[in-house]
Amino acid sequence: MKDLIPVAGNGLLDRRAFLRGGAALAAAMTGYSVRAEPLTDAPWSKEPGSLVEPYGGPSKYEKAALRTLSNPKGEPRTQHGRTPHHLLQGMTTPNGLHFVISHAGNPDIDPAQHRLAIHGLVKRPLLFTLDALARYPMVSRFTFVECGGNSAPLFSPEPVQANVQALHGLASCAEWTGVMLSTLLEETGIDPQAKWIVAEGGDAQHLSRSVPIGKALDDAMIVLYQNGERVMPGNGYPVRLLLPGWEGNMNVKWLRRLQLTEQPGMTYYESRTYAPILPGGKAYQFYFVQEVKSFITQPSVGVELKGPGFYEISGIAYSGNGRIARVMVSADGGQTWAQAALQEPVLAKSFTRFRIPWQWNGGPAVLQSRAWDEAGHSQPTRAQIIAHRGQGSKPTPVTAFVSQHYNGPTSWAIDATGGVRHVYA
Amino acid sequence: MKDLIPVAGNGLLDRRAFLRGGAALAAAMTGYSVRAEPLTDAPWSKEPGSLVEPYGGPSKYEKAALRTLSNPKGEPRTQHGRTPHHLLQGMTTPNGLHFVISHAGNPDIDPAQHRLAIHGLVKRPLLFTLDALARYPMVSRFTFVECGGNSAPLFSPEPVQANVQALHGLASCAEWTGVMLSTLLEETGIDPQAKWIVAEGGDAQHLSRSVPIGKALDDAMIVLYQNGERVMPGNGYPVRLLLPGWEGNMNVKWLRRLQLTEQPGMTYYESRTYAPILPGGKAYQFYFVQEVKSFITQPSVGVELKGPGFYEISGIAYSGNGRIARVMVSADGGQTWAQAALQEPVLAKSFTRFRIPWQWNGGPAVLQSRAWDEAGHSQPTRAQIIAHRGQGSKPTPVTAFVSQHYNGPTSWAIDATGGVRHVYA
Repeated sequence: MKDLIPVAGNGLLDRRAFLRGGAALAAAMTGYSVRAEPLTDAPWSKEPGSLVEPYGGPSKYEKAALRTLSNPKGEPRTQHGRTPHHLLQGMTTPNGLHFVISHAGNPDIDPAQHRLAIHGLVKRPLLFTLDALARYPMVSRFTFVECGGNSAPLFSPEPVQANVQALHGLASCAEWTGVMLSTLLEETGIDPQAKWIVAEGGDAQHLSRSVPIGKALDDAMIVLYQNGERVMPGNGYPVRLLLPGWEGNMNVKWLRRLQLTEQPGMTYYESRTYAPILPGGKAYQFYFVQEVKSFITQPSVGVELKGPGFYEISGIAYSGNGRIARVMVSADGGQTWAQAALQEPVLAKSFTRFRIPWQWNGGPAVLQSRAWDEAGHSQPTRAQIIAHRGQGSKPTPVTAFVSQHYNGPTSWAIDATGGVRHVYA
Repeated sequence: MKDLIPVAGNGLLDRRAFLRGGAALAAAMTGYSVRAEPLTDAPWSKEPGSLVEPYGGPSKYEKAALRTLSNPKGEPRTQHGRTPHHLLQGMTTPNGLHFVISHAGNPDIDPAQHRLAIHGLVKRPLLFTLDALARYPMVSRFTFVECGGNSAPLFSPEPVQANVQALHGLASCAEWTGVMLSTLLEETGIDPQAKWIVAEGGDAQHLSRSVPIGKALDDAMIVLYQNGERVMPGNGYPVRLLLPGWEGNMNVKWLRRLQLTEQPGMTYYESRTYAPILPGGKAYQFYFVQEVKSFITQPSVGVELKGPGFYEISGIAYSGNGRIARVMVSADGGQTWAQAALQEPVLAKSFTRFRIPWQWNGGPAVLQSRAWDEAGHSQPTRAQIIAHRGQGSKPTPVTAFVSQHYNGPTSWAIDATGGVRHVYA
């Protein structure tokens, strides 16, 4: 354990300990690196294995790494599929596990028949086939998409006993490739009166959201590919709108129409669901950005500790305002903090994996993370969020819960057995 | 077409044309951006869609985007599954489509039973469970893996009429996460006599390769995750060796053993398959690095042109020596060249997507790309490779084809109908 000097309370170690070399963990590892014993031939090494398939999937032993479903029978209401962050690593969410919210199921769109219309306050309305879109100059970027309602359980008066998949599973990150919306708007031309674009999906709900023209001309994309292959059916196949860093619901899937307008559409999701009334009587309207956030994925509920000793604390940080600048981690409920290492590449509006070494002494500990972005924002405390936005008002026919856009900390309490509970700290 | 000034022969345009804005493609696009017509409701927008699934997969309309299989019935010889690069975009290969070569099928390994031994010339031999490995500090990196035999058809005297999947489909790129091998070697200690590590897989073939200790201590990884989720069965589940930038076969899958030795093991693959005899009678031995390479994926065979006008030429470049520094593209068979744009992030030993705009005049064209890496290497010509290595010697019981490590150009000839053929140019 030489070289492994604690830098904050309760055993947090210098994030650079393992970059220097020479920091053998031998002491820390005793007890769980099994000593060498005769190597035997396992059954699978004595017979031919299974066939290489045209399209591969995970091992049968990874059945825990699945999306959890809120409505598995597809009753006539929203279906959610949440990403199992506690079982993943790195910054990429694999396509099979990217979160999905579908309000009317995933439409079975024939790409040969699908069209994207750009009309309204344009000089030249156009209708694009997929083949036409494929001929435009493309860009790729890694960016997260997060539902505005992700982390809603954190508004609960008492900590909900649930894992990170249930708490934060409505955010994922992928490499998206497509055409800049600005390129297509060069084609149609823009009437100077146009200030908004109403985007409409081609599913049975025709979900619609209004996007300021400034965002459309900044970094909005018309996306055709997700992590290299065509967009998944639940994520908008064959074409979706991508608004890097903005509320997930605005990233309209199965995109069929962009209407340029003077005024926003005041659609259902922007006038009701994502316009909750605040304690003072005013409402949020057009709360676009998913602000800086982080949470620890390992250890977390369901990823228990197996005896005292060395662990790596690892998690995800992201901000709709740009790059992550810094992540601090506490093992003593926020009394002392140490800086985590950020895994390169650190990309704007993308997941950034953070990691910090930790020597657990077997006593109680409370793990938290707090992120800063390059715009200078940091995560507020949970108390600050509740004080500002209120808590727990029941939804009515015209108003929604305020339980949106939670970007405060998440706290995991470790007990002496290595068990992990969700707490407020 | 104002602002779209050709920068090389046969219609290649400035790579920055679309960064400046104001470069409307209206003229270029005429004829395939369909003019606005009444927007109708498609059948899929009139009924509920399909269920959100625990683990998603591509649309049924994407059946062309599959790996092609060399041995689909799993006869007792090697199985290859090739990546369909002509249908992909960006830098990430999705896990379902990562190339696979399995010499004895994919073993069905129970991770709870699997062990990784590190022994031989070490101070303290150790046997690691997967749970033990999961406690070590991890790193993530994007890197390509490429079979030494990828692109072998380019050694053929006449150009093989095949698509980019058949020619170059044995290379893929993913974000890999795991433990640095150097971290585990800190645990075992290294006897000063040790110069090599013999890595052995746990499949029925027990595939073995020898790795110099320098590479092991540099950037070698013991990989547990691929694009965020556990490594795919065909790519080495539950644990593989990753040697960024080195011959794919050395990145031993289903890793069960690392033996530190004074001498290399002179195993089958390093003494026969990947040690071909050269025209002068000498043989390559330990040809580790996958050298700088690039190929155009769109357009390419099977991705035909649909009439004259604007297209984006797009492809992949990579080098086992580091970052891609530059990619040049020719549309006239190598007479004139223009610099392609490199999609950020440009990462060492990773795929880099390159793109350049092109105005096709409807006449004959021959598309090529040539890449340079930050180490100063560039792709040789095909003639240089053949002159040095020979061509077409039949394999014998003790020697292999020389058809390995081809990193010359790939040329696509466009005819007046927009058809694409593989040519040597």
